[in-house]
Amino acid sequence: MRILSGMQPSGNPHLGNYLGAMRQHVAMQDVKCAQCYYFIANYHALTTLRDGPTLREKTRELAMDYLALGLDPNRVAFFRQSDVPEVTELAWILDTVTPMGLLERAHAWKDAKHKGKKGETVGLFNYPVLMAADILIYQSDVVPVGQDQKQHVEIARDIAIAFNNIYGETFKMPDVQIKKEVATVPGTDGQKMSKSYGNVIEIFATADLLKKQVFSIKTDSKGVAEPKDPTTCIPLILLAHLLEKNAAAELEKNVASGGVGYAELKTKLFETLLEYFGEAREKRLELEQKPDFVEDVLLAGAKKARKLARETLDEVRRKSGL
Amino acid sequence: MRILSGMQPSGNPHLGNYLGAMRQHVAMQDVKCAQCYYFIANYHALTTLRDGPTLREKTRELAMDYLALGLDPNRVAFFRQSDVPEVTELAWILDTVTPMGLLERAHAWKDAKHKGKKGETVGLFNYPVLMAADILIYQSDVVPVGQDQKQHVEIARDIAIAFNNIYGETFKMPDVQIKKEVATVPGTDGQKMSKSYGNVIEIFATADLLKKQVFSIKTDSKGVAEPKDPTTCIPLILLAHLLEKNAAAELEKNVASGGVGYAELKTKLFETLLEYFGEAREKRLELEQKPDFVEDVLLAGAKKARKLARETLDEVRRKSGL
Repeated sequence: MRILSGMQPSGNPHLGNYLGAMRQHVAMQDVKCAQCYYFIANYHALTTLRDGPTLREKTRELAMDYLALGLDPNRVAFFRQSDVPEVTELAWILDTVTPMGLLERAHAWKDAKHKGKKGETVGLFNYPVLMAADILIYQSDVVPVGQDQKQHVEIARDIAIAFNNIYGETFKMPDVQIKKEVATVPGTDGQKMSKSYGNVIEIFATADLLKKQVFSIKTDSKGVAEPKDPTTCIPLILLAHLLEKNAAAELEKNVASGGVGYAELKTKLFETLLEYFGEAREKRLELEQKPDFVEDVLLAGAKKARKLARETLDEVRRKSGL
Repeated sequence: MRILSGMQPSGNPHLGNYLGAMRQHVAMQDVKCAQCYYFIANYHALTTLRDGPTLREKTRELAMDYLALGLDPNRVAFFRQSDVPEVTELAWILDTVTPMGLLERAHAWKDAKHKGKKGETVGLFNYPVLMAADILIYQSDVVPVGQDQKQHVEIARDIAIAFNNIYGETFKMPDVQIKKEVATVPGTDGQKMSKSYGNVIEIFATADLLKKQVFSIKTDSKGVAEPKDPTTCIPLILLAHLLEKNAAAELEKNVASGGVGYAELKTKLFETLLEYFGEAREKRLELEQKPDFVEDVLLAGAKKARKLARETLDEVRRKSGL
């Protein structure tokens, strides 16, 4: 079973990114029948990031983040999207079989238009076709995405059907797999944790910064002895994601019955983070010193991916008469 | 001075194609300062032709047509668009800097929409961006086009400006060169000669078919002795394009003063066509027997073009952080 996932290089992963996606990505490599193809979506990133050095740096950082978190490049094809330029060629070919209406009806595009931003680019509009090319070129079986990306996989299916109808059976039909919702991870202010809200806890921040972020978590004014609601106590909610089930349940009970103060919870969260990510944080620092190693890993991943991409593209070219 | 031109592989070139474009393409190779890059636009052709074997065949035929007409692959880079897939990668990158409005305002697109056709494709919409990629990747100085394509070159300029503004000076600004209008070449029914009107005279047709096409030219019922209007006499107009200036002027005089019949004019046109295209027609038959030679010519042309394309694309990738 081939599983495809693309990650945007947005830099400085936070606990929300980790619990929402990165943890599952890494875990998937242990699933016996899974062939994972993971790429850093730097072509797609160009639609929002127009600064060469920054994009290059964020791409490298995301690679280090995943490797530090335990992604094993021997078991997973891990590569930069732009090291398989075949996807852009396939994207053009798919453009020629994609009805305009399919993209015009895409929620993400309609949202962007609704915001009435001037100067929306063709890249943003054409985004789903490049995504379809990514999915179809690797003949992916499963594309795990969040609910917000579901439609994009459906568009990829529609495009595959359109191509297959015209040129004969070529693309495997990818299945959408909606990721089980990790109960939304709250940020330090209680809203969903998100870089754009400035409420994140960054898993690779320095210990000082990490402490600062943890201690900035909003709490109410309840005293140590008072009972607290476990469903709204942010440090507790975050801790529960990281602790063993039993330990989490016990802590929840104690918080609910009173006697555990916020300072204690925050200290515990900080220490748990340091421990939980201890190995990863150490490895991340090591990788910083080995840029050539990181580059080699990505190139080796691209070699694997490109072989597969080339096969599909050759068939597509042959069938379409190029 | 680098001159770029892309030709759609539409098959069976007629006198209108020859006088309107092909003749100038071939003549340009003798201009000292001109570096010509000519490609068969098969990626673009996918927007209208969705039949692999037919597209492949038409592509090969167009190559033979040009070589038969005297295009010299040693003096011109002559290649298939799809042998330089770098243009599709550049097209994606340019997508990300191209405002939607620029494409929405394109005449060709608006016309297509006005016709109210259902299922217009993204390829048709995105057509000008791939064309811009073709133009810009070779750092073209001049793009000779018909009046109807002028806007597409202007779009390429706008896209070049957008990219240069964001990432720094990268693309040379191409100049539009509107081809001097060859007085419209009339077809056998007096309308503009065009495959879609079924009124063509095909320069590589068999002698029998050619004769049939020539003799199907519409004329009025004037007798041999009657004076005829040279400006509406189709066989004369076509002849005038092929004869030496003096010979053409004399023939016009004779037609105007009477004494030259339509049958005589048609016979003369038929014979003139056989003579004018004699060498080309012979070479065309020879090339039919040498598919490997034609393929090699195209591949050698692609090698030249690709080197240049690679340089531009490498710079673009570096600047955009891919």
